[in-house]
Amino acid sequence: MSKEITSREKDYSQWYNDLILKGELADYSAVRGCMVIKPYGFSLWENMRDVLDKMFKDTGHQNAYFPLFVPKSLFEAEEKNAEGFAKECAVVTHYRLKTDPENKSKLIVDPEARLEEELIVRPTSEAIIWNTYKGWIQSYRDLPILVNQWANVVRWEMRTRLFLRTAEFLWQEGHTAHATKAEAIEETERMLHVYATFAEEYMALPVVRGVKSANERFAGAEDTYCIEAMMQDGKALQAGTSHFLGQNFAKAFDVKFADKDNKLDYVWATSWGVSTRLIGALVMAHSDDDGLVMPPRIAPLQAVIVPVYKGEESKPVIDAKAAEIMMELKALGVSVKYDRDDSKRPGWKFAEYEMKGVPVRIALGQRDIENNQVEVARRDTKEKNTVSLEGISTYVKELLEDIQVAMFNKAKNFRDAHITKADTWDEFVKVLDEKGGFVAAHWDGTPETEEEIKGKTKATIRCIPLGNEQEDGKCILTGKPSKERVLFARAY
Amino acid sequence: MSKEITSREKDYSQWYNDLILKGELADYSAVRGCMVIKPYGFSLWENMRDVLDKMFKDTGHQNAYFPLFVPKSLFEAEEKNAEGFAKECAVVTHYRLKTDPENKSKLIVDPEARLEEELIVRPTSEAIIWNTYKGWIQSYRDLPILVNQWANVVRWEMRTRLFLRTAEFLWQEGHTAHATKAEAIEETERMLHVYATFAEEYMALPVVRGVKSANERFAGAEDTYCIEAMMQDGKALQAGTSHFLGQNFAKAFDVKFADKDNKLDYVWATSWGVSTRLIGALVMAHSDDDGLVMPPRIAPLQAVIVPVYKGEESKPVIDAKAAEIMMELKALGVSVKYDRDDSKRPGWKFAEYEMKGVPVRIALGQRDIENNQVEVARRDTKEKNTVSLEGISTYVKELLEDIQVAMFNKAKNFRDAHITKADTWDEFVKVLDEKGGFVAAHWDGTPETEEEIKGKTKATIRCIPLGNEQEDGKCILTGKPSKERVLFARAY
Repeated sequence: MSKEITSREKDYSQWYNDLILKGELADYSAVRGCMVIKPYGFSLWENMRDVLDKMFKDTGHQNAYFPLFVPKSLFEAEEKNAEGFAKECAVVTHYRLKTDPENKSKLIVDPEARLEEELIVRPTSEAIIWNTYKGWIQSYRDLPILVNQWANVVRWEMRTRLFLRTAEFLWQEGHTAHATKAEAIEETERMLHVYATFAEEYMALPVVRGVKSANERFAGAEDTYCIEAMMQDGKALQAGTSHFLGQNFAKAFDVKFADKDNKLDYVWATSWGVSTRLIGALVMAHSDDDGLVMPPRIAPLQAVIVPVYKGEESKPVIDAKAAEIMMELKALGVSVKYDRDDSKRPGWKFAEYEMKGVPVRIALGQRDIENNQVEVARRDTKEKNTVSLEGISTYVKELLEDIQVAMFNKAKNFRDAHITKADTWDEFVKVLDEKGGFVAAHWDGTPETEEEIKGKTKATIRCIPLGNEQEDGKCILTGKPSKERVLFARAY
Repeated sequence: MSKEITSREKDYSQWYNDLILKGELADYSAVRGCMVIKPYGFSLWENMRDVLDKMFKDTGHQNAYFPLFVPKSLFEAEEKNAEGFAKECAVVTHYRLKTDPENKSKLIVDPEARLEEELIVRPTSEAIIWNTYKGWIQSYRDLPILVNQWANVVRWEMRTRLFLRTAEFLWQEGHTAHATKAEAIEETERMLHVYATFAEEYMALPVVRGVKSANERFAGAEDTYCIEAMMQDGKALQAGTSHFLGQNFAKAFDVKFADKDNKLDYVWATSWGVSTRLIGALVMAHSDDDGLVMPPRIAPLQAVIVPVYKGEESKPVIDAKAAEIMMELKALGVSVKYDRDDSKRPGWKFAEYEMKGVPVRIALGQRDIENNQVEVARRDTKEKNTVSLEGISTYVKELLEDIQVAMFNKAKNFRDAHITKADTWDEFVKVLDEKGGFVAAHWDGTPETEEEIKGKTKATIRCIPLGNEQEDGKCILTGKPSKERVLFARAY
């Protein structure tokens, strides 16, 4: 397999696919729209999951697991939710195969094994979970319920992209139940901030925190909060959502609780999720034409040591020094690999680890050791430095933190340079077409106008930022009065 | 909900269900045969998963993720495997629902959205994985592949039991590819020993390591290795399996590799798995008529402190001392909860934590503190001791290890007392009916005889133990000559 990557300039979309495939994050599968997450990609997901899981537990949540299948009658109970997902559902109709009487080596669906009620493969789990919560909630003493689930979900999308939009994906979905509206809204916002913190501090991905317009709201939610990121091609990407569900699901599944005065009321709900889509965001935000660039805090591998042998007699010296550096680095909590594979040249390895985005590369030769020094290269800027072997592990540890910060700052500068105000329709279209990014513009607040703008430009309202500045203006399309700018963008 | 538990004596099966439901490990769901794993049960699973995952990684494996769905044409490629699972497959036939024209509030399967090829919800992933490996393996340099996946699988079982047999369950499945037969067998055995070590050292569950007879082999395997455990009712439970798959899947999916001499050969395979069924084994092996008994090393909660208040003025004193003990215990890595819920009496809490099987309970009253002592109860034996507050945390830490060992020894004594030799058919039946457990008996080695014994007694060959003693004898059913005893039992 050639490790040549298409440049961003030449074909951004192909560049992205090249990175995913040649960087060994994922592979296509035999199932339409589904992917295989390869060990390197899965290790990245594990690191992300572990950090998020700890953040969820630190905010009082526990994990649980609910069935993969949703009986159709439950699925349709919350009408808007059902309507929103009905068009992209995988449906199980039978529970047995049998030998094809016309060809004994083939199997066919056994028509006698038809399910009485079809089962929907969960596209999201509100229905099955709220049907369960009904049995768990009687009184205010049973509240709040703060539960999260790590799971696979299926949405039968017509156009798929590795990580960004796949028929099956991995995610977590939090589903909480509360006694009051205020508490539910507080939870919705809390989890939005957890997501934003994770994106910024671990993925080095700056995000705008905001609220969706009605058109872009989750099916069944009263309000959808989101974090929006900016990719290098100027398109936005929704990186996580947190929904205030009001009493919609409690009403659909008749989940009531008795308060302290024994008065019955419907329970208030939230749900919130992030998925393997985040990996797509990570790749598109940070990578370059030589490969992936991994943020050190979640990188599957933080550092690699590549020996530069000169003849057999140099091997024991270099191997011994490498072992010493490895031990020091591991003691500092740095994940590190020593690649002494004899069948590959150092140059090949340098390219390979650049492709995989390993943050720090250490090249170690015999002369380096004699001079008590080593060459250290950072992946993000490709800067190389000759560094003393004294305190090399501390140097690497600090360099990893520098890279993390530099990656965030670079992405933030790019993002900030791609938020542009537009006050007229012509300006709006010009910015979208020539520069891309977020366009901060006035909008009259109606779904119809948003729909029309989308139809004309493919741009949608990504969000109304939290704490948005209030300012009188006129809708860029209709000229009607507006009190604030919202962020438009073309998006993944 | 009443916390009364049916006794083992009265109704073993109901006792088990009571423990699962009232111990809050799991709940029934709206989906036939599927369960909800509740937070307490899931926390147990997380602890088990984390230990196993580390053991897998320490033996060189990496995690990955493969699609949930298996296209029918791939599913049927390995004939024996297909035949083995065809009768219990959930089949996705459609990818869309639409509004029922006869009732606008209902949804129906959209007949126009029929899949060209049906998708099987994975009952196991050999087919989809070996179809993928085909693209990953060209030469011996690409081997071995040592991959594991944590996933949900679906087997449409007719009779289901919480944890022991559910239509959907969680598991891990390792799938490895090797250049030689010897290496694949070595891997199969290595993972069997990993499972046995996990069962014995963490679950306190003694197991027999062995090989299955042909009748009980995994569909598509050349050999199935297993660990078999003994439950308190004298029935056996298969707790984990490791399969040597030979070249069966490589042949079915045409996966060849070039060796060092550039000669092509089919790749050798293994697969191995344990599932949430282990939780059922844990419950049945250790629990008693008062509730669950959790082995300390994987208990969701290792210790609980219950305050015994005497009036308001005792609270600050007790709370302060509890906080101190908590801090000490946490510093020693003990998971501990302080339950100061005012709405429940201490006696209620004692019963509750007994039900949940928390290994150590500390009751803390003001007079205790004045006397510089505290009451510590262990769950397994229900022994209570008054212990000095000096060094209490070390005492608890050591007690947890004692409990772990005592639980294993108790289960091992029970298991060993339930391995009985039988030399005649009458003896064989008598042991099965009156005592249960494993019956070590001679068998003529034919599938027909095994089948007949199963038909007459419901007992199956659980395994031929590894390192089995060779001994001349006669088959208990046919009288034909036999070289070794095998272990029969009725089983879950």
